[in-house]
Amino acid sequence: MKCFVTGGAGFIGSNLVDCLLPYHKVTVYDNFSTGLLYFLKPERKGLTIIKGDLLDTSFLMNAMKGHDVVIHLAANADVRFGFNQPDKDITQNTMATFKVLEAMRKNKIDKILFSSTSAIYGEPKIVPTPEDVEFPQQTSLYGASKLACEGLIEAYCAGYNMTSWIFRFVSILGERYTHGHVFDFYKQLKAHPDHLDVLGDGNQKKSYLDVQDCISAMLDVADECDAPVNIFNLGTKEYCKVKDSIGWICDYLNLQPEIRYSGGSKGWIGDNPFTYLDTDKIRSTGWKPTHTIKTSVIKTIKYLENNPIVMERS
Amino acid sequence: MKCFVTGGAGFIGSNLVDCLLPYHKVTVYDNFSTGLLYFLKPERKGLTIIKGDLLDTSFLMNAMKGHDVVIHLAANADVRFGFNQPDKDITQNTMATFKVLEAMRKNKIDKILFSSTSAIYGEPKIVPTPEDVEFPQQTSLYGASKLACEGLIEAYCAGYNMTSWIFRFVSILGERYTHGHVFDFYKQLKAHPDHLDVLGDGNQKKSYLDVQDCISAMLDVADECDAPVNIFNLGTKEYCKVKDSIGWICDYLNLQPEIRYSGGSKGWIGDNPFTYLDTDKIRSTGWKPTHTIKTSVIKTIKYLENNPIVMERS
Repeated sequence: MKCFVTGGAGFIGSNLVDCLLPYHKVTVYDNFSTGLLYFLKPERKGLTIIKGDLLDTSFLMNAMKGHDVVIHLAANADVRFGFNQPDKDITQNTMATFKVLEAMRKNKIDKILFSSTSAIYGEPKIVPTPEDVEFPQQTSLYGASKLACEGLIEAYCAGYNMTSWIFRFVSILGERYTHGHVFDFYKQLKAHPDHLDVLGDGNQKKSYLDVQDCISAMLDVADECDAPVNIFNLGTKEYCKVKDSIGWICDYLNLQPEIRYSGGSKGWIGDNPFTYLDTDKIRSTGWKPTHTIKTSVIKTIKYLENNPIVMERS
Repeated sequence: MKCFVTGGAGFIGSNLVDCLLPYHKVTVYDNFSTGLLYFLKPERKGLTIIKGDLLDTSFLMNAMKGHDVVIHLAANADVRFGFNQPDKDITQNTMATFKVLEAMRKNKIDKILFSSTSAIYGEPKIVPTPEDVEFPQQTSLYGASKLACEGLIEAYCAGYNMTSWIFRFVSILGERYTHGHVFDFYKQLKAHPDHLDVLGDGNQKKSYLDVQDCISAMLDVADECDAPVNIFNLGTKEYCKVKDSIGWICDYLNLQPEIRYSGGSKGWIGDNPFTYLDTDKIRSTGWKPTHTIKTSVIKTIKYLENNPIVMERS
């Protein structure tokens, strides 16, 4: 099969490419705004790397020609900064996804895997939150932009007989992790081991999934489920407080920094203070995660220690 | 109050302007792609008419300056043809709404009324469909584009302290109605009174609301409800089959055409064969519609008979 992976040089994309390459031909399409060639080992057989932007309509359409499936991971994933740059999420997520769908339609490619997010649930009334929870209200531009992508994908499936697999991720951790709070904490502690600045009061409850578990879930489901639209929450059956992950990181690094909380139940406007997804649906397919949150947090810190290039670049 | 009405020269917009003008200053912003100056009686005191496009960012921003509230009705409302022109809904609805929100933010205008649609419910499992039904799957690009608008508006309310009133309309009928099946049927019967071509099998169940009732609901709710995001279904407590409205129209026109059904439960891809909204929430505010579907269908036909310019233009 010929797979076209947008954002294939990024954190999740490059790990996915590693899993696909033994079995499939893979084209990575990435603008390298946050992705790294370092993640890709470009000399591998069956791997094509194209530097391109999703908004470059005709270039994208030509690049996509002849593929069987699109795995659309490219996105602005900086949920926190949406309200500082309100055009970024709608352009890089919603419009970019529209361009991907149009290129697929014109190239007669009818299968798409898509990375959505728990952020589309806003601040849900039901926690753990199932896929069919009541109509959510958006609290972030990131969530709003990804919800718009989901809607577009569903409409394309209805109108043009495509098949989609939409995955609503909790925060993902693991090798090649390049942004998010574990990254920020590690970066701070490298710069000043005596103190750590934390947004919110540290009691925000968050869910995480290891990138390897995330990828096995995506590939399993795409193999097994073939409704026109297949939507799955991806996460583990646990959550932790921000304080917990700080504790694990400091223990592992053998540091006792002063923790300076900015206060408030949210880390930023649009931050959901309790993210925890109901993952019964994905588990009913037989998939199970193999990492706990704690092991994945520590695995992530080890990766960052052993790959200073990732820190230097940020 | 100074009201900025996008799409103010259109069907619903121009009726709304008539209701606002006795009490408020009104600016109509319309590109006149479907709106008509004929609907506006431009010489009225307190009325300013600006021909402009919502995608013209700086022109829009200047035009909006100094207003207190935005009533955003401009949209591509041709739900049926979305899959023939897939960029139209995302551009004219989603991107245009983003431009409106940005112009509001930059002009420090914090109130928006927005015309959404029952189409965002796709083919809901629960009928009559309440506002908080389970997370819907999109079946049309029109629905997907309006869902994206709702998400953007909600996020802007969360991030920039705006207040929004979002109305999910069933099909609207009444004076200045310029598109939709009652219009199509009347146009056909004018051209060839002996037969009528109908999409689907005629058993599609549809809901309608008279434009005057629609406007009174919008204005009542905006007066009374002040949550950051106020979402209301708008419709009546009845629905009819397409066959019923054909019967009323033919009776009124005293015609017995041969009815030629194209067949199938849907009129087109993305058509929801049973649209019926739960309107208990809007009714709980005290609002009640004053027209039945039948009286509104006939009122619409009378309007089209008396205003041939509307038919000629189409």
